[in-house]
Amino acid sequence: MSIQYIHIFLFVLLFGTVFTLSCLEKRDTNLAQMIISMERAALDRWGKGDPWGYTAISAEGVTYFDTSTERRVDGLDALKKYYKTFEGKIRIDRYEMIDPKVQVHGNTAVLTFNLIDYETQEDGSLSKTLWSSTEVYSRIEGEWKIVHTHWSKPNSEQ
Amino acid sequence: MSIQYIHIFLFVLLFGTVFTLSCLEKRDTNLAQMIISMERAALDRWGKGDPWGYTAISAEGVTYFDTSTERRVDGLDALKKYYKTFEGKIRIDRYEMIDPKVQVHGNTAVLTFNLIDYETQEDGSLSKTLWSSTEVYSRIEGEWKIVHTHWSKPNSEQ
Repeated sequence: MSIQYIHIFLFVLLFGTVFTLSCLEKRDTNLAQMIISMERAALDRWGKGDPWGYTAISAEGVTYFDTSTERRVDGLDALKKYYKTFEGKIRIDRYEMIDPKVQVHGNTAVLTFNLIDYETQEDGSLSKTLWSSTEVYSRIEGEWKIVHTHWSKPNSEQ
Repeated sequence: MSIQYIHIFLFVLLFGTVFTLSCLEKRDTNLAQMIISMERAALDRWGKGDPWGYTAISAEGVTYFDTSTERRVDGLDALKKYYKTFEGKIRIDRYEMIDPKVQVHGNTAVLTFNLIDYETQEDGSLSKTLWSSTEVYSRIEGEWKIVHTHWSKPNSEQ
């Protein structure tokens, strides 16, 4: 192979690599945006007292922790039963999703963010709650679903 | 193809499928045991005031929440800086890892469990702390590392 062909070969290899990496990065960015949109849509419904936005995007084998679960909740049926107790009882005026981050590892995407919920109290004052949120999404049979959720309140002891 | 050959073909296909599924199940069981062992080894060191067992098995891009983090901790360097404040200050007599579960999705394994820490106080009494724990492990360049950690205390408001 002449030097000229080696140059062409190396150029094509370099171009191909850069193109592939750029496509992968774009795929991850698009996926991150999609995951965050799914989460926001479920959060919007949650804030109106409708927890079923979350169960609609949770997998059969979902596992779940929040500040009230003394033991992990296992499976979609158990989560539905637990969420039933929240139905119609939540009223969040608005929320702030702080610095959402999506870590993509193959067909799994770990979404993490802090959240501030703002809620108008009966006396007209505004209550503010800070949350830490973990949502592990995984692609199961072509669909992205939540396989694990963890909600906690930082500094809750202070 | 005669009926006899179809039977042999179907038998081989069925045997192959069962064998493959059995291998995959065994692989997941072995992986779950390995992940739980890694976590226990890090927990053992943590209970002796040594947080570096956790940083040794965390990825560069690890994200982290606990009850004291008002915002997510991003990256191994930031986590090391944060853990430095705990060094030599933790003394856990024993712990109980309750119902650890590993959900395997490709090269990602989500380990979840409740934990009870037992600690002898200065007056000789035993304090007991309940935790909910999420550890997302991922295989990065052939090594299983923690890519996300979330520790919280359920019922901390009650």
